[in-house]
Amino acid sequence: MNDIQERVAGSFKSQGMMATLGAQLVSVADGEVRIALPFSAKLSQQHGYVHAGAITSIVDTACGYAALTKAPPDCEVVTAEFKINLMRPAIGERFLAIGRVVSSGKLLTVCTGEVQAFSGTECKVVAVMQATIVNVRP
Amino acid sequence: MNDIQERVAGSFKSQGMMATLGAQLVSVADGEVRIALPFSAKLSQQHGYVHAGAITSIVDTACGYAALTKAPPDCEVVTAEFKINLMRPAIGERFLAIGRVVSSGKLLTVCTGEVQAFSGTECKVVAVMQATIVNVRP
Amino acid sequence: MNDIQERVAGSFKSQGMMATLGAQLVSVADGEVRIALPFSAKLSQQHGYVHAGAITSIVDTACGYAALTKAPPDCEVVTAEFKINLMRPAIGERFLAIGRVVSSGKLLTVCTGEVQAFSGTECKVVAVMQATIVNVRP
Amino acid sequence: MNDIQERVAGSFKSQGMMATLGAQLVSVADGEVRIALPFSAKLSQQHGYVHAGAITSIVDTACGYAALTKAPPDCEVVTAEFKINLMRPAIGERFLAIGRVVSSGKLLTVCTGEVQAFSGTECKVVAVMQATIVNVRP
Repeated sequence: MNDIQERVAGSFKSQGMMATLGAQLVSVADGEVRIALPFSAKLSQQHGYVHAGAITSIVDTACGYAALTKAPPDCEVVTAEFKINLMRPAIGERFLAIGRVVSSGKLLTVCTGEVQAFSGTECKVVAVMQATIVNVRP
Repeated sequence: MNDIQERVAGSFKSQGMMATLGAQLVSVADGEVRIALPFSAKLSQQHGYVHAGAITSIVDTACGYAALTKAPPDCEVVTAEFKINLMRPAIGERFLAIGRVVSSGKLLTVCTGEVQAFSGTECKVVAVMQATIVNVRP
Repeated sequence: MNDIQERVAGSFKSQGMMATLGAQLVSVADGEVRIALPFSAKLSQQHGYVHAGAITSIVDTACGYAALTKAPPDCEVVTAEFKINLMRPAIGERFLAIGRVVSSGKLLTVCTGEVQAFSGTECKVVAVMQATIVNVRP
Repeated sequence: MNDIQERVAGSFKSQGMMATLGAQLVSVADGEVRIALPFSAKLSQQHGYVHAGAITSIVDTACGYAALTKAPPDCEVVTAEFKINLMRPAIGERFLAIGRVVSSGKLLTVCTGEVQAFSGTECKVVAVMQATIVNVRP
């Protein structure tokens, strides 16, 4: 595990929210981070599907950490804003959020993200995100 | 409690996600819904503040139910997309999400939302949202 | 005319795009800027209404200048991103874009904007925007 | 030229705005449309670069027509909303907007778009968009 992978893994573990959702860090590559979320009834919305807020939480987090892999070593990152399209109901046994860096500057990083839903052998993209992340010196 | 208030209250109670977050339905008026969220360490991100995903979950839900108050009685609503600006760290003892209808058509409703953070006697807006919600006939 | 009004007026005049659209600077207040656009067939989309791109241009510009009124005096501003909902066809004799600052930090300013369409004595909001603007030192 | 290409070409020609900007329809494929824009001083913002509103106009139009290639034959399309990140100043001799369909349903189509800037032999992505388009029966 290299430095940035260790840093992301440590930060991920410290997030109460990720544990509460049951989310798992899957992989950390340069400019791309993946987070998995198994279905749980405790994440449901009124129709029994996974709540948009849970889907958003994992893809926002994946985008943030993807941005961190491109940030200067002395920087932390903060999500300034994002936009998400929820294209289909989040039905599935397991969800995979992928955050990818599109452009990284000194100050701002732009990421795109998607969430895939897995049901049996089927995989469908249920959401796409576009996010702006800021490098901050702590 | 009128019909729409009852319908929103029932739907809210059926959401596993709202219970998991510890969110509470505060009020349902025509075109405006409020949801409260007490601080909890189980919702934290890596710096100990409330995770953007939790903040997003309550304001998205408030916008969705605000849209429902304007939907035809035989319709349900689904969030098509939203955009959120996270203007400050979500620091506070309690958070209040307000969703408001800006425009409602036969098919699409546009809402704005905000999240206020309360610390002692202080109140700050930490996030603003703009959302598009679709009326669907079940 | 105070300093910031003069600065905005000068900058507005230097924009080829504003002249091409026929847009006019209406007012510059602290945290709020208004820009008008008379209808013109040269701005039409395929149904004869005003193109979303023209509507977007004036409200993006209004938001940017609203942010400038809150920026440190030695800073310029650049729009990092925005989101716009086009709620109704842009039908009217005249359009008014209003950009307002919601939150301004050292680095980032968040604005909301709207575009009103005037037809005879009628006024309708046809679009709402949420934008993120960056302070840059030239 | 097939039916949909003819339909897009006819609609594009009827847009006063596209002529005013000097934009040209480059290609219409299933789920992907390209529009070019040569630099012109009449599209400039205050620093002499191309105005965000011009960049937005071409990529919004490209996304809309991309959605049209996936719409039922008796439908027209209307952009409900979009979000755009302006990642770099729009500096170049020529710009190319590409709109692509990510997901198309009965009612809503989600597109992503990008704008590339060409300067000499260099090509840079200056903007990315995520848009929601509605199928409407006229």
